[in-house]
Amino acid sequence: SNDVKEYENYFGMTLLDRRSDKRTDSKWLSKKQSHPSTVYILFSNLSPLVTLGGGRERSQQPEVKLCRLYHNDVEQCMNQTEECTLIFLGVELQFNMNLMAACNGRVMQDDEEDGLVAWFALSVNSASAEKFKWKLEDCYFLHPPMPALLQLPEKEAGVIAQARSVLAWHSRYRFCPTCGSATKTEDGGYKKICLKEDCPSLQGVHNTSYPRVDPVVIMQVIHPDGNHCLLGRQKRFPPGMFTCLAGFVEPGETIEDAVRREVEEEAGVKVGRVQYVSCQPWPMPSSLMIGCLAVAVSTEIKVDRNEIEDARWFTREQVIEVFIKGNKCSFFVPPSQAIAHQLIKHWIGMNANL
Amino acid sequence: SNDVKEYENYFGMTLLDRRSDKRTDSKWLSKKQSHPSTVYILFSNLSPLVTLGGGRERSQQPEVKLCRLYHNDVEQCMNQTEECTLIFLGVELQFNMNLMAACNGRVMQDDEEDGLVAWFALSVNSASAEKFKWKLEDCYFLHPPMPALLQLPEKEAGVIAQARSVLAWHSRYRFCPTCGSATKTEDGGYKKICLKEDCPSLQGVHNTSYPRVDPVVIMQVIHPDGNHCLLGRQKRFPPGMFTCLAGFVEPGETIEDAVRREVEEEAGVKVGRVQYVSCQPWPMPSSLMIGCLAVAVSTEIKVDRNEIEDARWFTREQVIEVFIKGNKCSFFVPPSQAIAHQLIKHWIGMNANL
Ligand SMILES: Nc1ncnc2c1ncn2[C@@H]1O[C@H](COP(=O)(O)O)[C@@H](O)[C@H]1O
Ligand SMILES: Nc1ncnc2c1ncn2[C@@H]1O[C@H](COP(=O)(O)O)[C@@H](O)[C@H]1O
Repeated sequence: SNDVKEYENYFGMTLLDRRSDKRTDSKWLSKKQSHPSTVYILFSNLSPLVTLGGGRERSQQPEVKLCRLYHNDVEQCMNQTEECTLIFLGVELQFNMNLMAACNGRVMQDDEEDGLVAWFALSVNSASAEKFKWKLEDCYFLHPPMPALLQLPEKEAGVIAQARSVLAWHSRYRFCPTCGSATKTEDGGYKKICLKEDCPSLQGVHNTSYPRVDPVVIMQVIHPDGNHCLLGRQKRFPPGMFTCLAGFVEPGETIEDAVRREVEEEAGVKVGRVQYVSCQPWPMPSSLMIGCLAVAVSTEIKVDRNEIEDARWFTREQVIEVFIKGNKCSFFVPPSQAIAHQLIKHWIGMNANL
Repeated sequence: SNDVKEYENYFGMTLLDRRSDKRTDSKWLSKKQSHPSTVYILFSNLSPLVTLGGGRERSQQPEVKLCRLYHNDVEQCMNQTEECTLIFLGVELQFNMNLMAACNGRVMQDDEEDGLVAWFALSVNSASAEKFKWKLEDCYFLHPPMPALLQLPEKEAGVIAQARSVLAWHSRYRFCPTCGSATKTEDGGYKKICLKEDCPSLQGVHNTSYPRVDPVVIMQVIHPDGNHCLLGRQKRFPPGMFTCLAGFVEPGETIEDAVRREVEEEAGVKVGRVQYVSCQPWPMPSSLMIGCLAVAVSTEIKVDRNEIEDARWFTREQVIEVFIKGNKCSFFVPPSQAIAHQLIKHWIGMNANL
């Protein structure tokens, strides 16, 4: 069951080492900001700047890739007085091994190169965004983000997941929720501090200072007979699409109880055993999708129309057909980049192996 | 491995059905608020009002229990103009089966009894808290909360986990983080809405309106030889206590990668395979502890003194001894109510079964 997680987790793979230890090293950060090898990725309105990859065969879809900018591309924009948000994302995992070996074992001098290629996310306002589009002809902002984000190469998707989640936090959490005052940003974009001197949020450690991650349960519910699964659809889905039920974990609740509560609330079906399968970050805006297998102990469906539009038991054969014939079936499931797809596939695979 | 979760999850068991469908039913909520069977639990400064249970054998520790109040106890306090926060927690799971059967299958009249015993959490200010302490002689507020909260009966601990998490959110998230304006509370205490008419948080669904749950990974790290585990301690721990490493899941990160990052950051040890074991809500203030087993692929320890004070490999025999001899050993682990205790125990049990 670990295969799902390790090999096919869109938004969960990355090409960066976060190096959170560097977030408080303002000297290092500022040196890297102006270093010529440093990579900047741009966002406007939470949409990343991308470009079309060339040199692909005609038969394939054109590849959408992150537009990698450098210090001299963004220098002017960052020096403007208008607000822009800068997040330190980490350093490239594939660094120069020779350089590393040379530096290994001795203390680095201040002015020395550590060979690390740093990445930053930069969020700019609409005016600056227009200028960038004008200057960089092949580039455009991916908007709306879904489902367009799913076109990105897998490893870049992980960078986007990190950057977009933190930027979404900055855009929605501008003011101190404890006292309503303005805040300032620290730790490479990972911390916000209230500017009011006697605010209670400044005493002790509080989550108001840190980015939010919302845990969500998403579950493949199996019929007691083992040969059907429960899939549902929301009104806003494209016609014909069915997927796993899902919902936010509530305060004071376990993952397993959240699964049981959501399935009963949305479809009226009671769940017994729950088993964790794998998880996936989902940057819309900042969720952690926790994928589970859930065994139903009742079968009658009572749909709560406030939450979903429909929910049905599908046979294993119906589901297998969807994976083989794709969209030529009476219904379809989300694309392979979604954890729901992986959970459903995992279930057919697992049953086939029994 | 499911046993841990299902039978021994402190803060994860409850005596309530949350009935989130009732949160928007203001008529039902207000009827229940003044119903004589409705139970109120009181908080001051995030500490619950408790009482000592009687009738126990002398040899045992006195039992601390939630103080259950009723409408006439809290009426006066709720009618005061001073602020107090009210949260609908749910209805008792063990309700009157006869009454349920009688009501089953027909539409309830407005003035009819549904037989459901509702629970509310009420947070009062210091002045009101003093009055309650004075009036209710046997009762007191559990302060500081830790480790005192761990004395509560298991099922009441689940109620506290829910109530304290939501109340902590109210106390720290008073103002709209998007625009800094005042907010109003809805949905039985589960939603906050900005009062500024043109605030962007009022367009679409945003997590600023909903209580926060912070996912944390906590992991039992196993040595490549299978016979040692990695435990660490923070400066603020009682002397001699060692426990599993832990840390917050970051935006755009999977559970498995968070485990690998935290173990490498804190102890310099590299982790390969990660396996979910069980989870536990932890209301300090509102975390979801996600317990994992992690297999190390390197063994040298390099402690990051900014994060922890010490980390060591302990042999299986040393750990078994701690569980048998308790505090007569050279070190000890957290009490059974903590998921760390369960993870460590799970590891010895598992190995013994091999
Ligand atoms: N949501 C969060 N709440 C509190 N601390 C956080 C959060 N996210 C990250 N942190 C970091 O974790 C540290 C506290 O860790 P701990 O001592 O385990 O509570 C803080 O100093 C922060 O650097
Ligand atoms: N952290 C959260 N962010 C957004 N919606 C939430 C959150 N927690 C609970 N909800 C509820 O979940 C609904 C949105 O669910 P969904 O349509 O799946 O995004 C909202 O209408 C809320 O009632």
